Amino acid sequence: MLVLGHTNPDCDSIAGAISLAELLTKQGTPATAIAQGEPNPEAKFLLDKIGFAAPEVRTEIAGEDVWLIDYSDWGQAPRDAKKANIRGIVDHHKLGDITTAEPLECWIRPVGCSCTIVYSMYQAANITPSKEAATLMLGAILSDTVKFNSPTFTPVDREAAEALALLAGVEDIDAFADEQFAAKSDVASVPADELVLRDQKVYEINGKQFAIAQLELTSVKPVLARLDELETALVALKQANNYHTALVLLTDITTLNSTGLICSDEAAQVASTLGGTIEGSVIDLPGVVSRKKQVMPPLQREFDVA
Amino acid sequence: MLVLGHTNPDCDSIAGAISLAELLTKQGTPATAIAQGEPNPEAKFLLDKIGFAAPEVRTEIAGEDVWLIDYSDWGQAPRDAKKANIRGIVDHHKLGDITTAEPLECWIRPVGCSCTIVYSMYQAANITPSKEAATLMLGAILSDTVKFNSPTFTPVDREAAEALALLAGVEDIDAFADEQFAAKSDVASVPADELVLRDQKVYEINGKQFAIAQLELTSVKPVLARLDELETALVALKQANNYHTALVLLTDITTLNSTGLICSDEAAQVASTLGGTIEGSVIDLPGVVSRKKQVMPPLQREFDVA
Repeated sequence: MLVLGHTNPDCDSIAGAISLAELLTKQGTPATAIAQGEPNPEAKFLLDKIGFAAPEVRTEIAGEDVWLIDYSDWGQAPRDAKKANIRGIVDHHKLGDITTAEPLECWIRPVGCSCTIVYSMYQAANITPSKEAATLMLGAILSDTVKFNSPTFTPVDREAAEALALLAGVEDIDAFADEQFAAKSDVASVPADELVLRDQKVYEINGKQFAIAQLELTSVKPVLARLDELETALVALKQANNYHTALVLLTDITTLNSTGLICSDEAAQVASTLGGTIEGSVIDLPGVVSRKKQVMPPLQREFDVA
Repeated sequence: MLVLGHTNPDCDSIAGAISLAELLTKQGTPATAIAQGEPNPEAKFLLDKIGFAAPEVRTEIAGEDVWLIDYSDWGQAPRDAKKANIRGIVDHHKLGDITTAEPLECWIRPVGCSCTIVYSMYQAANITPSKEAATLMLGAILSDTVKFNSPTFTPVDREAAEALALLAGVEDIDAFADEQFAAKSDVASVPADELVLRDQKVYEINGKQFAIAQLELTSVKPVLARLDELETALVALKQANNYHTALVLLTDITTLNSTGLICSDEAAQVASTLGGTIEGSVIDLPGVVSRKKQVMPPLQREFDVA
């Protein structure tokens, strides 16, 4: 059995795959976590913390038995996923377009993090996660809920995080999160053309493609100081892919506000849809933290017109 | 919150909707079971047993918050289901084509009955179902698993049924099932044109429509004695709907064999695909009990050719 997360692997995708593979193995189905790419810096930081290597990168899964974690859309799966046997899905997003030929197991819940669900699967099976898996799941929950501050956060996420902190031997959850967030905020040496792709998701609305990346930072100032090179990278990205909109959210996870860098056929309309004020390529987005809850739904409603 | 099963409501659809509505209500979300039609005779028997009326029939749900039970396909939902807010899905079939705009709760497991899953939801919530709900869920599990004999049956179904029997005050599960099965086998007074529609599901394979009904009977002899009028009804059904195949499975739940009555553009090919021998419009199908596991997959493989 293989367990794999979505493209552009984040903490939830990596931690979830490793923890779910451990659970399935303990339940008698030997399972291996794989990934569709290298983990992002925050996930890499968590892996280093427990001394684990990144999961093997695999993008061909035809004929394999697989569990998917943190998505239910073909678009975020390997290209040949329709030829795999999808045995299970763990997710906390809206239900996507994946269908299967056989009955499967879906654990989908409207909580802040897929790892919160994986932890509930351990509880249902009456199995205790290893210290390493607990550390990874804790990190994923803190990341996805921005330390319990995202609008996607639920009390179930906090209960899971607190139980996992005990198992991980983490006494100070705040300090653990801050260390993790500092690691992902260290983007000074990352080239601009990589930054504009960070955690990118591409949505299609009424035939128009919206590429929305998100950087979560303890301070957005160092990135804004590089505005010129980021603008150049954003324009190149939009043109190369014929996107309607290329948007990068710089989310300040200390103040819980975002700044958007945009290159779009309808930049002013995007800005007003998101309740922001635009100046040049910069949109001020006070109070915006969650792309899933605060950015995508208004864009969907505004641009999905026949 | 509304809870509703699929078209042609069977035991699982009715019992699941009522039991899940009770659970959601006990969890603080007032919920009402509805149905897309009158319950089938077996479901009606169970409702009579606990003194419950059939759920209100409703086929318009636009704008409503709903849970779906026992399906995840738009084709088995009300026509306006895309305009409803689907908050949850409980199912034990393959994953269908339903997608949602918002995160939801999916409890999908490869077990024999949706009510087995509803019972696990009660357990996860640490809530005890009422005697009435327990009776309905027990009946649904016995129906869907043909008293633990269907190839879709799993040990989890038996555990749930035994726990529910205790709550329902049912000492002899066998006798309970036999009474229920006798009720649904009493088809002497049912017109032939109704019988050929019993528990019908219509599948499309490569542009061809296969309408497959199933009657579960303690003996198939009384129905086979009416072969002439059933053949007439089957021919009329196929022609009126332009089906490639109209097939009625008469499943003997005592001997665990089926007899198929068929009217098809390719009757011999259908018969051989199912491993059966054909004589006139009658196919002998030894050992066939489950449409989902033993009939649809081979037809899909045989007829889904480009």
